[in-house]
Amino acid sequence: MISGKNYIGKLLTAKGSTKFKTFNPLLNQHNTWEITEATIEEVHQAAELAAVAFKTYAQFSGKKKATFLRAIAEEIEVLGDSLLEMYCTESGLPLGRAIGERGRTLGQLNAFASHLETGDWVEATIDTAQPERQPIPKVDLRKMNIALGPVVVFGASNFPLAFSTAGGDVAAALAAGCSVIVKSHPMHASTGEMVASAVLKAAHKTGMPNGVFSNLNSKGNEVGEQLVLHPNVKAVGFTGSLHGGRALYNLAATRSEPIPVFAEMGSVNPVVLLPNALKNSAKNLAKTFAGSITLGAGQFCTNPGLIIGIASKELTNFTKSLAEEIRQIAPICMLHPNISKAFQTNKEKALEQEGVSLIAAISEPVPPNYADQMVITVSGLRFIKNPNLHHEVFGPFSLIIQCSDQTELEAVVRSLEGQLTGTVISDNNEVAAYTTVVNELRQKVGRIIFNGVPTGVEVCPSMLHGGPYPASTDSRFTAVGVDAIKRFVRPFSFQDWPNELLPEELKNENPLAILRTVNGIKTTKSL
Amino acid sequence: MISGKNYIGKLLTAKGSTKFKTFNPLLNQHNTWEITEATIEEVHQAAELAAVAFKTYAQFSGKKKATFLRAIAEEIEVLGDSLLEMYCTESGLPLGRAIGERGRTLGQLNAFASHLETGDWVEATIDTAQPERQPIPKVDLRKMNIALGPVVVFGASNFPLAFSTAGGDVAAALAAGCSVIVKSHPMHASTGEMVASAVLKAAHKTGMPNGVFSNLNSKGNEVGEQLVLHPNVKAVGFTGSLHGGRALYNLAATRSEPIPVFAEMGSVNPVVLLPNALKNSAKNLAKTFAGSITLGAGQFCTNPGLIIGIASKELTNFTKSLAEEIRQIAPICMLHPNISKAFQTNKEKALEQEGVSLIAAISEPVPPNYADQMVITVSGLRFIKNPNLHHEVFGPFSLIIQCSDQTELEAVVRSLEGQLTGTVISDNNEVAAYTTVVNELRQKVGRIIFNGVPTGVEVCPSMLHGGPYPASTDSRFTAVGVDAIKRFVRPFSFQDWPNELLPEELKNENPLAILRTVNGIKTTKSL
Repeated sequence: MISGKNYIGKLLTAKGSTKFKTFNPLLNQHNTWEITEATIEEVHQAAELAAVAFKTYAQFSGKKKATFLRAIAEEIEVLGDSLLEMYCTESGLPLGRAIGERGRTLGQLNAFASHLETGDWVEATIDTAQPERQPIPKVDLRKMNIALGPVVVFGASNFPLAFSTAGGDVAAALAAGCSVIVKSHPMHASTGEMVASAVLKAAHKTGMPNGVFSNLNSKGNEVGEQLVLHPNVKAVGFTGSLHGGRALYNLAATRSEPIPVFAEMGSVNPVVLLPNALKNSAKNLAKTFAGSITLGAGQFCTNPGLIIGIASKELTNFTKSLAEEIRQIAPICMLHPNISKAFQTNKEKALEQEGVSLIAAISEPVPPNYADQMVITVSGLRFIKNPNLHHEVFGPFSLIIQCSDQTELEAVVRSLEGQLTGTVISDNNEVAAYTTVVNELRQKVGRIIFNGVPTGVEVCPSMLHGGPYPASTDSRFTAVGVDAIKRFVRPFSFQDWPNELLPEELKNENPLAILRTVNGIKTTKSL
Repeated sequence: MISGKNYIGKLLTAKGSTKFKTFNPLLNQHNTWEITEATIEEVHQAAELAAVAFKTYAQFSGKKKATFLRAIAEEIEVLGDSLLEMYCTESGLPLGRAIGERGRTLGQLNAFASHLETGDWVEATIDTAQPERQPIPKVDLRKMNIALGPVVVFGASNFPLAFSTAGGDVAAALAAGCSVIVKSHPMHASTGEMVASAVLKAAHKTGMPNGVFSNLNSKGNEVGEQLVLHPNVKAVGFTGSLHGGRALYNLAATRSEPIPVFAEMGSVNPVVLLPNALKNSAKNLAKTFAGSITLGAGQFCTNPGLIIGIASKELTNFTKSLAEEIRQIAPICMLHPNISKAFQTNKEKALEQEGVSLIAAISEPVPPNYADQMVITVSGLRFIKNPNLHHEVFGPFSLIIQCSDQTELEAVVRSLEGQLTGTVISDNNEVAAYTTVVNELRQKVGRIIFNGVPTGVEVCPSMLHGGPYPASTDSRFTAVGVDAIKRFVRPFSFQDWPNELLPEELKNENPLAILRTVNGIKTTKSL
């Protein structure tokens, strides 16, 4: 069923000789079939085809693109249990997660379809002519968002469906009117191939041009690099490590025509525990955060990797309770040996830092590729001085920072790098006394949470998933929710353009009945 | 009256020993007073102060920031004729232009003030909680745009007021809630100092924090480079050459925390002349374009530097008429000897290219720093093959491309780099037969014009001033019009945040009565 080949548009092709296998981390063995890496020639073919397809696809109406997105969702559902099985085989994640993530993926595709159907996303703005204006006449200007060009999306290791082949970035780019080339994640290349086949079936059924979507395999870096460097490519979406995201950003900046790289690179997601909250609910908080730290083996970019409090009896109690909770949670399998090895290395490196002590670890040996969660602690001063403690440890891990007082708490927050999220745990009135801390935290993050956990990224228009560097390469855009479409569009102005030649969105009659800003007034009326 | 010093916030300072003078191109001599370059220490002081001021300023309401912007406009007006005189002294531009550009500058400041007062620009989005949702409750999420951080703006040589010290980029950044450090353009540093003094008076009168605005002088590159590299700086605005803009872009990309650089770097603004239009109005078109080419000595980034047609008797007639018109226009003074020297060099280099012939030039010698306009011509094939002919010649210059047929016309358009504008000159029905040309042109430009000239950039919400690289470094934003504010904001989400601690824009009561998207519906109602 799995060909292991690349899709250049609808063509299944495997000209290369470099092959690799995916891995079943639960069985601790490679899967039997082979995947063939795309060649540089195939990269160029896909990029050429994407540029040709773009010219047609970008002109399609929102409603037509919406039928494509909805058809992708339908075709993914048609794949049924075989997709879920492949997902589990290549990720070690449980079936429940597979089902949930598929639901999220379909939900995203349908949300973008609805967004296209309402049509407001083009942000149509019209300023009508004033031929009599003195000293010079005013021209007629009409502006709307149009598609940027072919987009390359890198699949994410930790979301084989929701942030990979037909995940959030792909849905956003297709919604915008961009053709897409996916660089499939090597850890779940076969899951990727199945989803790609669904996308291509949907493209065929809904009359999309060949090349609107391609899916290329590779384990090494060259295919991705050549894609980012290809002159036809106009933007890049990436979810993964800081190292990988920054490398792509740097590469794109060396192009003769630089292009935007939207890399979402994770973070340590600081949680600030205020004293009264600790006093009143230390045990509950410990239980909640133990769950959040270990959820999905901590393989979420919103994992709470940093818990910050002021040293006190209550913080000690919280720490003890957290340790008990952490030790009671059964370790689970990680996505891949490389990920579990990195987890082991990074948590041990963190534990070795000066002044760090262990709070909780799993004493029993765990099966291969399983993550034995760990919580450690350090003083605020040590944390501020040691940049090694600021790095993300991808996995079920958290560092508790014990500050001497409120001033040190502020200094710790001030010393943080950019983050996806920041969380404040507070008794209702308490937070008012910590305005400085909250303001410092707001400058560092993309989303701030009150009395909750950072894991669980709700897919809705008000979600901002992104944040100041190094959480993402461009804090001005979200990777989750319908506004993710904004990454892949550019505004475009028509001056004195004949009404019959304007796109529907800008015609006098407003045939789509969308909300437009006409001479400064928001209206759905015709001119 | 001119101190020649730098403003670090309200402090006038000149610790450096490097001095320079501005130049009066009409008199062909240096102005007498000296300007002192900022030192690296002063750069750091300005950046530190900007970060401190940002913390306060970013929290101000739109209405409060609007009073600041309106006060800047008022204080610039108070400078009266002395500002206009200095403008002319340092630029060689005529008084009428000075008055016009001042009007445009005040108009921009007031337009951003009005934009802040309506408040919709924060794009508030609210998704309310669903505590009963299965399988997991839905949290309350609220998103709005917030200020990015301190911004550095480089003044433009060709707009001493409208794109410099209190020009479009500065107005946009201040409106967004960012503190601003201007790197004053060395050609009009004293005009810059006068405007800076107005901004600082306005800041004082309206209670803005010290450091919300600074103005640094330099003739060399180091001050600008150090500003772009300073960790406190979060974005850069630039208007100028491709060489300069790209250098800043590259520098910003090397930072440990990369930041966006919005460089607007000009273009050749292709004009496509369709056959019937030429047949019916060759003489009128020649007159119109002669005016557009020579307007302001061609010192506009929207100057029509490329006129493309299909070789015919009518194109020959147009070319002859254009030559006559061009020769009748009196040359005028350019901004600076460096600019007029570059103009001479670049136009001569263009004329020397293989297959190029002269259409019109000024035979009489012109006074020093005056621009003797020139129009040249080349075949479509030669143009496509010779990248030297694709470069902008900044000044009153245009290249007429004579294509053998419609296919070559398409190929010429396809060979173009990114442009600010593209223009189509057409008889009403004619353009329908040139869909491919128009579609190719649309992919290359930020604004497309029907039967007009590219010069004259209307300041209004529907203007898109920008375009695919190398017209600008980021085609997804405009440098003109109120949407320029979008460059300097980032969206930010509050999750389950207490209503009383939310910004006014996101509170249940909607106290500002702004238009918000609440659970997918656009409304000004409270929750």
